[in-house]
Amino acid sequence: MDKQTINLGLAGFGTVGSGLARIIEENREWIARRIGKSLVIKHILVRDKDKVRPFIPGPEARFTTAAEDLLNDPHTDIVVELMGGTRAARELISRALESGKHVVTANKALLAEEGADLFDLAEKKGRALYYEASVAGGIPIVQTLRDSLAGNRIKSLTGILNGTANYILSEMTTTGEKFSTALEKAKEKGYAEADPTLDIEGIDAGHKLAILIRLAHGQNYPFKSLPVQGISAVSPADIELAKEFGYILKLLAQVREKSGKLQAGVHPVFLPQDHILAKVDGPFNSILLNGNAVGPIMLYGQGAGDLPTGSAVLADILALARDERNPNNTGFLENPLPQADILDPELTVSGHYFRFTVQDRPGVLSALSGVLGENNISIAQAVQKQDNGEKSVPVVFFTHQALMRDVSRALAEISSFDFINAPTVHYRIIK
Amino acid sequence: MDKQTINLGLAGFGTVGSGLARIIEENREWIARRIGKSLVIKHILVRDKDKVRPFIPGPEARFTTAAEDLLNDPHTDIVVELMGGTRAARELISRALESGKHVVTANKALLAEEGADLFDLAEKKGRALYYEASVAGGIPIVQTLRDSLAGNRIKSLTGILNGTANYILSEMTTTGEKFSTALEKAKEKGYAEADPTLDIEGIDAGHKLAILIRLAHGQNYPFKSLPVQGISAVSPADIELAKEFGYILKLLAQVREKSGKLQAGVHPVFLPQDHILAKVDGPFNSILLNGNAVGPIMLYGQGAGDLPTGSAVLADILALARDERNPNNTGFLENPLPQADILDPELTVSGHYFRFTVQDRPGVLSALSGVLGENNISIAQAVQKQDNGEKSVPVVFFTHQALMRDVSRALAEISSFDFINAPTVHYRIIK
Repeated sequence: MDKQTINLGLAGFGTVGSGLARIIEENREWIARRIGKSLVIKHILVRDKDKVRPFIPGPEARFTTAAEDLLNDPHTDIVVELMGGTRAARELISRALESGKHVVTANKALLAEEGADLFDLAEKKGRALYYEASVAGGIPIVQTLRDSLAGNRIKSLTGILNGTANYILSEMTTTGEKFSTALEKAKEKGYAEADPTLDIEGIDAGHKLAILIRLAHGQNYPFKSLPVQGISAVSPADIELAKEFGYILKLLAQVREKSGKLQAGVHPVFLPQDHILAKVDGPFNSILLNGNAVGPIMLYGQGAGDLPTGSAVLADILALARDERNPNNTGFLENPLPQADILDPELTVSGHYFRFTVQDRPGVLSALSGVLGENNISIAQAVQKQDNGEKSVPVVFFTHQALMRDVSRALAEISSFDFINAPTVHYRIIK
Repeated sequence: MDKQTINLGLAGFGTVGSGLARIIEENREWIARRIGKSLVIKHILVRDKDKVRPFIPGPEARFTTAAEDLLNDPHTDIVVELMGGTRAARELISRALESGKHVVTANKALLAEEGADLFDLAEKKGRALYYEASVAGGIPIVQTLRDSLAGNRIKSLTGILNGTANYILSEMTTTGEKFSTALEKAKEKGYAEADPTLDIEGIDAGHKLAILIRLAHGQNYPFKSLPVQGISAVSPADIELAKEFGYILKLLAQVREKSGKLQAGVHPVFLPQDHILAKVDGPFNSILLNGNAVGPIMLYGQGAGDLPTGSAVLADILALARDERNPNNTGFLENPLPQADILDPELTVSGHYFRFTVQDRPGVLSALSGVLGENNISIAQAVQKQDNGEKSVPVVFFTHQALMRDVSRALAEISSFDFINAPTVHYRIIK
């Protein structure tokens, strides 16, 4: 931008918004060394103008409850959408792009579910729609995929993308406590929201994965088709068994290219303890990916929080301030991007962990292993735990690589045995 | 660039050059999706035109021994310098910039030692001088510092930047073998060159560190002032003691900002075994940095090799192909960048490891610890190893945080004791 002052219109002034304002204030001179211009927060769209705020940006900032104040001001250069939610945010972003403004957003739900339309609009208007902060907080994964690895075919990508879920699983692993206790602890520490559904049910990680798929593969993966499983049903028994056999249970977002088709999903997965992602503890995020030129690359950092996420929002603003002439939104020239070519999830191959809860009577182990064998599922390790005076005992299998279709069929057969006393627990294992 | 074909002039066709050519060939359609243009390798400057090559790029490529063929061809858009060495490379890059061409280079020695002049020339000519491949192979650390973290003050940066040295130390740690044996193994595996001086003496890591300092701090750090220590003197005894006390010995490149001054250097360092960089094994590279907004971030990947380094070269080419109008070479607007404000290395504070080789006689431990105490050096752990019938025994100290000036003075005093039988081994310890 040619002007000496870049005017920002902020929509939303929660954690990330005030974090951004603090960084801009604190690093003012530093930013001037980078871009030779000053950033001014001119409008701040909020629900309640009179709320007491922990941080107030400079005297130029005007709090408002009317989106028009941002949108109709010809001096607003960039609209920074940090409201969250999809409905009002989509409306605001569309109107900002329509009126020729650039947009920077951290809104993963919106970009995952309705990104295709918004990128189309941005493209038609020749405006930027940037979103570094939408995935993995301060970790620069968007720019890495869009620019630094642009010449690579991404063969696989595995991410720990939700700090809340990762913190809860880390706590359960360290202390042996159950899910609900670890969730309460996460709430106390500010790592989980009052309604944690999006985080613990894998939906937030799924949103981020859909965005990464678009960046890595240049395809729109309909969020509704993305298999997503959360951690609310994870029991300490499985965490304990994972440990005993050299694994750790992690909520992983994964995408792999297989014969030109994409295989993607969010699942709790058994990860070997010496896997590079196994060390990613607590609220941290990490992404491991494999490019056909660069080989394996891992990025690690804080996936949430006011300043880390604010840092990512600021990166987008600075990129625009330096040069707004040729915004690179999706990293691909095609518009619209094609729909993803999705591999049937039943054709997925991986190792598997089964914990069957069975009556303690003769022939059970043989019946179970028989069904697995008939379905081409080869057992790597099996353990039957001792009867502690309970009516039911756990029988656990770790399998070699097996086709999901075979696993589904075997589990369906097994579920009809009369010695099965509780639903079977099933997780994938990756190497 | 507006044209449909981007013509490249390659200077050098060794590992990285042929890797780049292979990626361009293999990912041709993919690259077209990204930039809508094709990349053509038009000239390849080599020393011997008739040498048999493992990979030959398309029919357009002409091998030549005359730099003029690249420089005088008005159709060459980007000169890609992959020759290595400083003299001929500097000449070629200067002439390319003078004649209005953009330059992409992987030449860390040149940029570290003479970068200031070359960036000045590029700035005056309004041309790009890009260098993602010069540090840490395929890891996108240049773009991360220059763009993604541009709004951050970088408080500290610690890197494992030389895969050869890291492989050798990993081997020594795993097998207990001595330096020369591990070096031979590295040569056999292709991880070390016939003359490994630059890698094992820390010079290559120092070059990379100087480049990272420029990117992170916007200051030119004169390479000659950078403290650089290699690993050729590392003995299995110290590796063993490190292990015994919960550490691992790594060659680290570090820079820290302290009261506005920079403290930087390359040294073998005792790193706690649970430190995130302690797991970086073999030929891998990793960079851990701390920004005042983003907090801790780590990047990990292959620091060398034809395809990983070629991937980084390609990233620079694609960035130019997308938009060459406003090259962002150093990440700062000032030209020239100021000289670094360097903290006196004697004012560095860290933990320390000393291994004294002493005569086995009464009073030695007391004399040593006395001198340390008088110099404000507080001992965290001490161990005197048993006499194995040798005339000399090792006495080892791990200290708390201590000022380098105090350490230097203490070591000078101790060196004059008559019971000291061999030069004292001294490494820093970081938390």
